Amino acid sequence: MNFTSDNIVGVSPAVLHALGEANGGTAVSYGHDEWTGRAEKRLCDVFEREVKVFLVATGTAANALSLAALTPPYGAVLCHEESHINVDECGAPELFTGGAKLVPVREHGRDAGAGKIGARGLEATLASFGGAPHNVKAAAVSITQATEYGTVYTLDEIAAIADLTRRNGLKLHMDGARFANALASLNASPAEMTWRSGIDVLSLGFTKNGALGVEAVVFFDPPLADDFMYLRKRTGHLWSKGRFLGAQVNAMLDDDLWLRNAAHANAMARRLAQGLASCPGVRFPVPVEANALFPILPSALDRRLREVGACFYQWSPGGLDPSDRPGPGEVLARMVTSFATTAEEVDALVNTARAASLAVEPGGAG
Amino acid sequence: MNFTSDNIVGVSPAVLHALGEANGGTAVSYGHDEWTGRAEKRLCDVFEREVKVFLVATGTAANALSLAALTPPYGAVLCHEESHINVDECGAPELFTGGAKLVPVREHGRDAGAGKIGARGLEATLASFGGAPHNVKAAAVSITQATEYGTVYTLDEIAAIADLTRRNGLKLHMDGARFANALASLNASPAEMTWRSGIDVLSLGFTKNGALGVEAVVFFDPPLADDFMYLRKRTGHLWSKGRFLGAQVNAMLDDDLWLRNAAHANAMARRLAQGLASCPGVRFPVPVEANALFPILPSALDRRLREVGACFYQWSPGGLDPSDRPGPGEVLARMVTSFATTAEEVDALVNTARAASLAVEPGGAG
Amino acid sequence: MNFTSDNIVGVSPAVLHALGEANGGTAVSYGHDEWTGRAEKRLCDVFEREVKVFLVATGTAANALSLAALTPPYGAVLCHEESHINVDECGAPELFTGGAKLVPVREHGRDAGAGKIGARGLEATLASFGGAPHNVKAAAVSITQATEYGTVYTLDEIAAIADLTRRNGLKLHMDGARFANALASLNASPAEMTWRSGIDVLSLGFTKNGALGVEAVVFFDPPLADDFMYLRKRTGHLWSKGRFLGAQVNAMLDDDLWLRNAAHANAMARRLAQGLASCPGVRFPVPVEANALFPILPSALDRRLREVGACFYQWSPGGLDPSDRPGPGEVLARMVTSFATTAEEVDALVNTARAASLAVEPGGAG
Amino acid sequence: MNFTSDNIVGVSPAVLHALGEANGGTAVSYGHDEWTGRAEKRLCDVFEREVKVFLVATGTAANALSLAALTPPYGAVLCHEESHINVDECGAPELFTGGAKLVPVREHGRDAGAGKIGARGLEATLASFGGAPHNVKAAAVSITQATEYGTVYTLDEIAAIADLTRRNGLKLHMDGARFANALASLNASPAEMTWRSGIDVLSLGFTKNGALGVEAVVFFDPPLADDFMYLRKRTGHLWSKGRFLGAQVNAMLDDDLWLRNAAHANAMARRLAQGLASCPGVRFPVPVEANALFPILPSALDRRLREVGACFYQWSPGGLDPSDRPGPGEVLARMVTSFATTAEEVDALVNTARAASLAVEPGGAG
Repeated sequence: MNFTSDNIVGVSPAVLHALGEANGGTAVSYGHDEWTGRAEKRLCDVFEREVKVFLVATGTAANALSLAALTPPYGAVLCHEESHINVDECGAPELFTGGAKLVPVREHGRDAGAGKIGARGLEATLASFGGAPHNVKAAAVSITQATEYGTVYTLDEIAAIADLTRRNGLKLHMDGARFANALASLNASPAEMTWRSGIDVLSLGFTKNGALGVEAVVFFDPPLADDFMYLRKRTGHLWSKGRFLGAQVNAMLDDDLWLRNAAHANAMARRLAQGLASCPGVRFPVPVEANALFPILPSALDRRLREVGACFYQWSPGGLDPSDRPGPGEVLARMVTSFATTAEEVDALVNTARAASLAVEPGGAG
Repeated sequence: MNFTSDNIVGVSPAVLHALGEANGGTAVSYGHDEWTGRAEKRLCDVFEREVKVFLVATGTAANALSLAALTPPYGAVLCHEESHINVDECGAPELFTGGAKLVPVREHGRDAGAGKIGARGLEATLASFGGAPHNVKAAAVSITQATEYGTVYTLDEIAAIADLTRRNGLKLHMDGARFANALASLNASPAEMTWRSGIDVLSLGFTKNGALGVEAVVFFDPPLADDFMYLRKRTGHLWSKGRFLGAQVNAMLDDDLWLRNAAHANAMARRLAQGLASCPGVRFPVPVEANALFPILPSALDRRLREVGACFYQWSPGGLDPSDRPGPGEVLARMVTSFATTAEEVDALVNTARAASLAVEPGGAG
Repeated sequence: MNFTSDNIVGVSPAVLHALGEANGGTAVSYGHDEWTGRAEKRLCDVFEREVKVFLVATGTAANALSLAALTPPYGAVLCHEESHINVDECGAPELFTGGAKLVPVREHGRDAGAGKIGARGLEATLASFGGAPHNVKAAAVSITQATEYGTVYTLDEIAAIADLTRRNGLKLHMDGARFANALASLNASPAEMTWRSGIDVLSLGFTKNGALGVEAVVFFDPPLADDFMYLRKRTGHLWSKGRFLGAQVNAMLDDDLWLRNAAHANAMARRLAQGLASCPGVRFPVPVEANALFPILPSALDRRLREVGACFYQWSPGGLDPSDRPGPGEVLARMVTSFATTAEEVDALVNTARAASLAVEPGGAG
Repeated sequence: MNFTSDNIVGVSPAVLHALGEANGGTAVSYGHDEWTGRAEKRLCDVFEREVKVFLVATGTAANALSLAALTPPYGAVLCHEESHINVDECGAPELFTGGAKLVPVREHGRDAGAGKIGARGLEATLASFGGAPHNVKAAAVSITQATEYGTVYTLDEIAAIADLTRRNGLKLHMDGARFANALASLNASPAEMTWRSGIDVLSLGFTKNGALGVEAVVFFDPPLADDFMYLRKRTGHLWSKGRFLGAQVNAMLDDDLWLRNAAHANAMARRLAQGLASCPGVRFPVPVEANALFPILPSALDRRLREVGACFYQWSPGGLDPSDRPGPGEVLARMVTSFATTAEEVDALVNTARAASLAVEPGGAG
């Protein structure tokens, strides 16, 4: 019953198998191998157009490098205050861009939905930029799909942000560490959720979704990638034995493994949410749209679940609208499911919660 | 007959096997897993003392991060002009240190040996640093063991450099991308070749030696590592599924696989060198001490070998002492062997070379 | 009637005179001259303790260099969202620190006062820092005295922030571009307003206050300055003819010119505020404590003043508490006085405003 | 008799006078004032074409900012090993470019002349750049006119370097800290010595030549300057009271003060060289072409001159061709003259040297 994150599990067997298949013989190093070539071609197919693809091993690398391709050192990236790039990458975007600023978009919250920025807030933030050269230059916007709160931008929401971004001469990045979860949630095509909606560069994550360690930086506007090979190399993210990155991507795309893994994780999140929702006192301030859920639990229930070995984070409610935050005697939890989560684990947690709820319920027999 | 590099081959089967063994179940992410813990402990054993270990996936990351731990942004790293950090990492050390300078050590060449810096040249270079704050501050020295030229520093040579380094208040880094090859060559212990000789930080490479992608940054002076976790994270080199880095290291250390792989590569280099040395017109301006050889070949022989499919680099002779460089009708070649090189491949090249030499030899029947 | 800023005026005659006095003969370059030495000594006297002083020519340099001395590249500087370092220096602090983040302190506004951060907001912001190494490391706090809104921290407010800062292991910087204006306002001593209240490093501005271009970075904890000479040089802020920086400082300190200039500017601001306050419809959402005022003006008055040639900025009200913002038919203005502002200019503006107010007042004879 | 540098003297009286003239009244800040505007226009006249001009206060700023406009973070600047940018700016070019490398041009020395790079060495250095993205990208070449050794590139030499630079897709920067000295030496026009010879960006120094602290970054290809305003601001080099930079430039250009000052300094250097050359045992390994001279002095003479109070540097001979270096009993000296050097000072040194030479000459009566 470990729901702390989707990075605590291992890898899909098909990925391991693919590593073995790619082994043996010689291959040109530094990403000029046939596995990487195939992965690049297949991503063109996936996105229904020519794309430029660069593989790296971590999500932080994919994000920070993407932003470095879009933002000059005297530029700004507008993003959600709690986005991964802003609070979980230890300043990697700042380093790789040469010192650009990450500027939180204002008025996020109710108008946009937890974890999302909204066009209105984005407009206000853009308007707050003062005159050059005192202020940095707004250069890029970054959105996360699915968000840190497990919510998913609709195509219309993306398009509205993209429209504003383009009209202001900025570029639009999507942090897709959980891209497949969002795809599965929206039932949209990869093309629709990206360039057809106005995305310029995507960090396409595979690691959380069943790979060992591989993410693709996908450029929908190839000239933006002109210098990217230098950026990847000078940050130490060019692999010599690149075939083992390419092979992972191929394995994830084969038979739609990436989509199946993500759909499974999402289904487990819904199952867990539905189960918990049936427990008295549990409520969901954030809709469950991908593979993360943020239930507010009675403290007694939270304690009970931890006693029986359930693992999940207690989350700071700062990102929620004040009216949605836990009250006295309640805590906000974060639970994340993955491709490897089983229905049994989910049901075990739900059953424990139900039993505990009965026991702790005011007026209950216990 | 592909001798272009030791990064064109795959991985040792034991490494793949270890990845499979590490799969399944949950593990704490970001390097707090048991595989990484075990690797850290085993490296303490290997080096016969407490060391601080950080795993990353690429050699450029290991080097540039090591240097960032030793050098302030206004500092200088003294190194060999043709060292990997100076010419093959696209400025990663400059980026990760925040702008430090890499200063080539003078008078390398005959006094030191191909690919090596010498204490005399180091002293002269240190003396050339002018007054603060106009000049940058000499902060670290970096040596490569084995070198880019396949030569190996003796323990005395390291100690002489370390002595000078310490007396000038600098720190000493070793780029050990081919550390095991040097160990096997010197028949020294890891402790002797590092901290007992005065090394402060080591980039310990496993990738070229049979791993998929893992290098250990090893701190012999633990306080130097105090902030390293931040450096690794902000460069995107902290893996979420860290167990797959730890598992590779463990597999390499098990049954001395790292040493056996390196000894094999070295033996293949010697075998190839001995075979080629028996061909008329072939000579070796650089001693063959690890897994790389730099034969000077008659141009006709070079052409013939390539015709039959042998792959190796033609190398710029700029790093050689002028009297050692190829003359008219000759080329300098670089050939690298690996853990996966077979005696058959070596012999095939040698036999082709011998046959060709007979054929092209002036006065030969052909 | 130009009240746009305190940087549109020239310099105090005594400063020009001092430049002439310092001219002629030879002087050791790069700040080792006698004028600079005297300035350093006098600042020790001013602050009643040993301080380390470094002169530079601009306020952005002084601030960004100060922060670079306090914050590692993976660190964060907590500051007011609208502080000069955050919005008016084009990312200089990010560049000079090597990529540190500037993190706006939360809940500023009513609890702290316009332009100020409060201990409560600072505490909440510090609490929002997540675990290392994902989040950057909170390293420094920066406050502006007097603030961008012309308000002045009391000694108690500074001490409360300093206490929190110290208890969390951070360092405290003061942006004193208008330090003398704050001193004159508080009637405190330089020592009280800085190190006795817990300030570690001060950017002490002279340029806005009558100098040509000189600011002093003052370290109250000398070891913090150990590497500062390198930082100043590598950012191009070490002057060869340093005597002309030192001479400016000496001229400003002679006969308390800096305090007299600041007291005059403050008095002009008060005079202007009192005059405007007597006009119907004019109100002050921010107290006038130094040399800047932020009147809310009826739009008709604003127009009238501009028609007769008065110059001042219309200011975005975003930094004000919503209940303090201008309503329909009103605008927020910013007016700044300087050492060179005359009572005549002030009175001219006030008289124009009074006349215009009578004219535009509803029910007036018009 | 102080010949240590041309930065130990004060400023031309006309410069001080101009500062006074510019004082009083209000002026738009941040370089939008009329003095700066006039300086920009006059530099267009000086260079006989449209140029983009940015004023800063120090030479290090001018150089490092110029290079930042020409070189991406993953780029290289090819320069003389002993150039100011490489050894005297504490890594400012590295910082401002975001981590670019400064690569010393090979084979400088006899073929090029002391302090100069030659087209042959430049070609060899360019050829040493390996494949992308392992090597950084050669992006710019920087030459110093006049050089650190007081030598002056001929127009043909500049054109040969420019031709090579352009054919390789690089940009060409000129460090003109002593530009006027070179102009006076060559008797060329500013246009001939810059854009007509292929220079893209010039750091045009006034400080050493009589100003208080002002240098102009001059772009001959205006689009290269598109983002420069951000670079200048984010490094703290945008002055608020910009009129005092503009006024200095105007004073220097008025009545050709810059050319007269430089011609005087050069004449003093020639006079000093001729006088010393008449002393037995004194020789000049480097031709005296601008305002610096590098005599080799008998040690006894060197001692004697210092005894009577003459000040000059003893210089490391490392930059000279071995056959030109001082022998036993000799030292290499550096002497620099300036706009303020008087014939009396020069003659006093020469007379002392002559008297001392007679005294110490072997076989002399003394």
